[in-house]
Amino acid sequence: MGEQKCIGILTSGGDCAGLNAVIRAVVHRATGTYNWKVMGIRQATKGLMSRPPQAIPLDIEKVDSWLTIGGTMLGTTNEGNPFAFPMSDGTLRDCSEDIIEGYHQLGLDALIGIGGDGSLAILRKIAQQGNLNLVAIPKTIDNDVGITERSIGFDTAVNIATEALDRLHFTAASHSRVMIVEVMGRDAGHIAISAGISGGADIILIPEIPYKISQICAQIQERQDRGKNYCLIIVAEAVRTEAGELVMHTNRLGQSRLGGIGQYLADTISDCSGAETRVTVLGHTQRGGTPSPLERLIASAFGVAAVDLVAEEKYDCMVSWQKREVVSVPLEDAIAKYRPVELNGTLVKTARGLGICLGD
Amino acid sequence: MGEQKCIGILTSGGDCAGLNAVIRAVVHRATGTYNWKVMGIRQATKGLMSRPPQAIPLDIEKVDSWLTIGGTMLGTTNEGNPFAFPMSDGTLRDCSEDIIEGYHQLGLDALIGIGGDGSLAILRKIAQQGNLNLVAIPKTIDNDVGITERSIGFDTAVNIATEALDRLHFTAASHSRVMIVEVMGRDAGHIAISAGISGGADIILIPEIPYKISQICAQIQERQDRGKNYCLIIVAEAVRTEAGELVMHTNRLGQSRLGGIGQYLADTISDCSGAETRVTVLGHTQRGGTPSPLERLIASAFGVAAVDLVAEEKYDCMVSWQKREVVSVPLEDAIAKYRPVELNGTLVKTARGLGICLGD
Amino acid sequence: MGEQKCIGILTSGGDCAGLNAVIRAVVHRATGTYNWKVMGIRQATKGLMSRPPQAIPLDIEKVDSWLTIGGTMLGTTNEGNPFAFPMSDGTLRDCSEDIIEGYHQLGLDALIGIGGDGSLAILRKIAQQGNLNLVAIPKTIDNDVGITERSIGFDTAVNIATEALDRLHFTAASHSRVMIVEVMGRDAGHIAISAGISGGADIILIPEIPYKISQICAQIQERQDRGKNYCLIIVAEAVRTEAGELVMHTNRLGQSRLGGIGQYLADTISDCSGAETRVTVLGHTQRGGTPSPLERLIASAFGVAAVDLVAEEKYDCMVSWQKREVVSVPLEDAIAKYRPVELNGTLVKTARGLGICLGD
Amino acid sequence: MGEQKCIGILTSGGDCAGLNAVIRAVVHRATGTYNWKVMGIRQATKGLMSRPPQAIPLDIEKVDSWLTIGGTMLGTTNEGNPFAFPMSDGTLRDCSEDIIEGYHQLGLDALIGIGGDGSLAILRKIAQQGNLNLVAIPKTIDNDVGITERSIGFDTAVNIATEALDRLHFTAASHSRVMIVEVMGRDAGHIAISAGISGGADIILIPEIPYKISQICAQIQERQDRGKNYCLIIVAEAVRTEAGELVMHTNRLGQSRLGGIGQYLADTISDCSGAETRVTVLGHTQRGGTPSPLERLIASAFGVAAVDLVAEEKYDCMVSWQKREVVSVPLEDAIAKYRPVELNGTLVKTARGLGICLGD
Repeated sequence: MGEQKCIGILTSGGDCAGLNAVIRAVVHRATGTYNWKVMGIRQATKGLMSRPPQAIPLDIEKVDSWLTIGGTMLGTTNEGNPFAFPMSDGTLRDCSEDIIEGYHQLGLDALIGIGGDGSLAILRKIAQQGNLNLVAIPKTIDNDVGITERSIGFDTAVNIATEALDRLHFTAASHSRVMIVEVMGRDAGHIAISAGISGGADIILIPEIPYKISQICAQIQERQDRGKNYCLIIVAEAVRTEAGELVMHTNRLGQSRLGGIGQYLADTISDCSGAETRVTVLGHTQRGGTPSPLERLIASAFGVAAVDLVAEEKYDCMVSWQKREVVSVPLEDAIAKYRPVELNGTLVKTARGLGICLGD
Repeated sequence: MGEQKCIGILTSGGDCAGLNAVIRAVVHRATGTYNWKVMGIRQATKGLMSRPPQAIPLDIEKVDSWLTIGGTMLGTTNEGNPFAFPMSDGTLRDCSEDIIEGYHQLGLDALIGIGGDGSLAILRKIAQQGNLNLVAIPKTIDNDVGITERSIGFDTAVNIATEALDRLHFTAASHSRVMIVEVMGRDAGHIAISAGISGGADIILIPEIPYKISQICAQIQERQDRGKNYCLIIVAEAVRTEAGELVMHTNRLGQSRLGGIGQYLADTISDCSGAETRVTVLGHTQRGGTPSPLERLIASAFGVAAVDLVAEEKYDCMVSWQKREVVSVPLEDAIAKYRPVELNGTLVKTARGLGICLGD
Repeated sequence: MGEQKCIGILTSGGDCAGLNAVIRAVVHRATGTYNWKVMGIRQATKGLMSRPPQAIPLDIEKVDSWLTIGGTMLGTTNEGNPFAFPMSDGTLRDCSEDIIEGYHQLGLDALIGIGGDGSLAILRKIAQQGNLNLVAIPKTIDNDVGITERSIGFDTAVNIATEALDRLHFTAASHSRVMIVEVMGRDAGHIAISAGISGGADIILIPEIPYKISQICAQIQERQDRGKNYCLIIVAEAVRTEAGELVMHTNRLGQSRLGGIGQYLADTISDCSGAETRVTVLGHTQRGGTPSPLERLIASAFGVAAVDLVAEEKYDCMVSWQKREVVSVPLEDAIAKYRPVELNGTLVKTARGLGICLGD
Repeated sequence: MGEQKCIGILTSGGDCAGLNAVIRAVVHRATGTYNWKVMGIRQATKGLMSRPPQAIPLDIEKVDSWLTIGGTMLGTTNEGNPFAFPMSDGTLRDCSEDIIEGYHQLGLDALIGIGGDGSLAILRKIAQQGNLNLVAIPKTIDNDVGITERSIGFDTAVNIATEALDRLHFTAASHSRVMIVEVMGRDAGHIAISAGISGGADIILIPEIPYKISQICAQIQERQDRGKNYCLIIVAEAVRTEAGELVMHTNRLGQSRLGGIGQYLADTISDCSGAETRVTVLGHTQRGGTPSPLERLIASAFGVAAVDLVAEEKYDCMVSWQKREVVSVPLEDAIAKYRPVELNGTLVKTARGLGICLGD
């Protein structure tokens, strides 16, 4: 099986369910099959910037119970782009060389990086700059990484959003109310449309399809005319106002972030239709919790396959789920291909076929 | 088994999990054992105000699958107090005599009313005024009805809030964040403290215990000093600002309602401690969904026992869960005895014993 | 949209989660989009054999709540092959012409048949004989229908088996025991290997891979040597004894059926290794319950797409899930291609990569 | 807060959900509030028999994540009564003095013992013999410990059995079958009757109520006459044959244990009624898995209260859940009072009130 390697693994970008299952699989395969060493790098690339680099040796004993644990035991960070990293003095600094240096200080032969399209693009740039051996694993609750049918975190997030709709269904009916669920989805509406179909939503709003409040109110009215005086709406957080503005929440320190479209819709629909509206904001519950069985399966398959790519010394590629099998694809292609909800795809066709209003 | 009776059943106040299981048990007992008739009254007392009264005959065939269904198949209403009921012309009217008349028009021999302390007090007043035969069943996700250890809806609501904490636990740790979950609890903090203990919260805020932001930030800091740079906070919606003001949400029509303490805390804590904060608002998911097995058991026991009280012609009383058995208690006593979270009770002692900060 | 059609829908073979979600989608699309009529045929082909044919008209109102309901509201039957159907007098009769006649008596323009490879092969034979317009939807908890990445029922069954392993994990460790879970899988081991990976099994036995008891006991011993004195085994019901015999259960009437391999293994392993063993037989819990969100999504997509195929008058084909989209494939090809667990596929590779013993 | 103590904690008898939550609460209270030391004793009393005694120091860091983990991290054993303990040479030996000596070797000031009525009686006998300071915490999935409304493990076990019934409901209906679920319950039928009511069983068989096969078949027939050609039966493992014999499973080594009443009933009912029957044996899944929120709450409250009893030096007592509060009761009384399902209690009345057949 060739010489003994030492590989690093890190989780970058937002956390989600299934990351620990990937790490566990990597450790099993690398140490159990190949007898390599595995270093778990802390806080994504930040662990490689630190001096000494922040990383812990991982063995089967340590990771054996990680299969079902949510989040990432290695931590991650949202602190910023390493090419323009915010320093404590307020300046931005290019830390890419520190990361490359950290990789060498740890004595790594290869790095397995788990991330979404943004994180993977950054990792690739660093790897190219430093001539590092990188294998990527796609992760995003938004499911918008191209060239893979599944990314880590999506299935569990959809399950949690669907469960919320299941719960709201009967309470909405009991009280003749319009219930609005705001779900994650920074750019794409995959969670909203998938959970909306699975959870029996009446209206689904996604960033890919502009909507009209008047259309939504017409749907609510049309339901009332059929004796259904309640309505379930699911909306992706990145959906804008009818006028196309992003809804941001700003705290007193002036920090702002996405969020609040649910409340905006509640107020606007209430104004327009007179209906009683209520909002549920699932927030980070969608990232946490026990990964679904499918999530764990794909995570395990990705972890094993990524180590095998290192064994073959096949780098600058990403594992991808295609037709029930894991294959490898060029990382360049993967990050080039962003995947929105397709307007003529099965999801949109199915939603329309079920009589669900998409706001247009 | 005496003459054949006709009994009515209604669900009033906010809906919750387990109501349909009660109705199912009432129908099984009344029709299966006693061979009576059961009328399901629509939209709480509003169904009795309507002319003709809005009610449907219920039999075992119809209710058999209702055991696991959330909400209430009879509907309920929050439209207002029947003694000062808002009419379409904007005036308020005392509709109590209409309700009494509706009871007689349906030919009812007795009425089984499911409600919280507020609804049951109103039902009792009407029953006394009209000399109606009333048996009450306690229901409230807040669990604040006195003289019964359990009310319908509470166990399921606690389960849902606990599950949200379970999910947030690892995502909070992965990202070094303060996660805030806002749960229901109009007056009492039972859901927040129960779910907080069960879900491993670090800080629990309930209306019964005033808090200081400085104390919360000290707890966050103390955790950081121990290497735990994240924190889980659960807060009841009725908790006020540190200055003692209710946090209300007002929509553009000027209608306002409770809600927003979670976001208030997120902003205030972020200001004070610099921590990154995120909010989850569970909203009506806590009322919906499949009732827990314990909920179904108590609901079934309450339903059977309530019918037996009618058979004994023992009225103006409420079924109550005490020491694993259903007993009956005078309705007057039950509604007189509001139950907050006791400051020296087992819940508070347990929370403090686990090192959970209660904000004081 | 062409003339108004009347289509029939039936569910055949063993029931599973997601069937009602398919029916709901078919009704929504056919009646809502195309304004056709839909007849729900009772008890699979038996409903078409009966005189008059047993079927009920389905509309949106009726099926709206079916999304989350397990089993099939239309019923199904295991009574036998319609080409040699067991009559009440003990003889076998070819009932295919009765079925064709039933199709015409109902005035059907097309039939949507949901079934596994066996049922679909029979339906196709009847359709060809009678020149009936058939569109097929694949369903099998075994996931062994070829040319589709997903069949209805599989995802939910895997979830249930995984959950059982999750539960057994810690109780096995607490008591130093060998825990054996027997899951469904009449021919193929897809449920066992998928749930085994997702649920962290130590040993997975599937019919595709012959095993040795000595190998299993060696694995148990090897774990003990590493301080792990417990072991989780998952086995598909169709796995044979080491000598290659099917394990059958025969009741006192002499009727026999598959089942009991779990107990056989428990006894044999206990003999061989001295370990304390316990068996869990999940049985039909794997077929029931609420379909998973993914199941509901695929079911909904299949239902809508099948109706669209009827609209295009594209018959003798099956809807198929490929690369996140629904496509249509020739039914002939679909039933010709049985799909076992592939010995060099991702599932087997992943299991071995995780250090899971497959008995060989 | 008095001198610093060192306390031991052990889990004895069969494991169940919630044990780790108790241990976590004990450690939090003892170390966090009182600044004591806590030793976790391995494998119940066997850890105290060993030389040196097998125990590990426990601190908050170690136990913090144990709240939701099933089983017991300390291990337990079923190897036998320490007053007649099976030695490796086949003889039985009284090991009680070894246990007492082990307690002293660890330097314990008190012992918190978690167990069912059998285990607690043995612990009490040893404590009296050695003059040890014992506080007991009741645990039993059978819920048959007297003088406490709740014991650790019961709520979760009922949830799991209920969920199995939920899943079987629709598959039974789809296929016109009699489905039998065998659940735990060594002496008492609490799990079977509670889950049977909560899960909508049609027939519930418990050891407290003798049954007749003819009565069961009559119920199945009566249901068929009403058009319900399926039936859900839940049976406690300790239920005997109609003739009053225990159903045992014996493996080839001649070891026998309870189990198999489900299959016995399947065969017997099939003979008698001709119905197609299927069996699910939940086995140890009932002991495992994540404890329910209520389980975690009671476990936490018990753990904190038990430490407080040690602080008050109030020994030879057991914590007990009564009317939503934890109180202490004399251990002597607790173990004297075995609690079967009461024939005139709320559970039996509720089951009969719902029309459920109890076999008599």
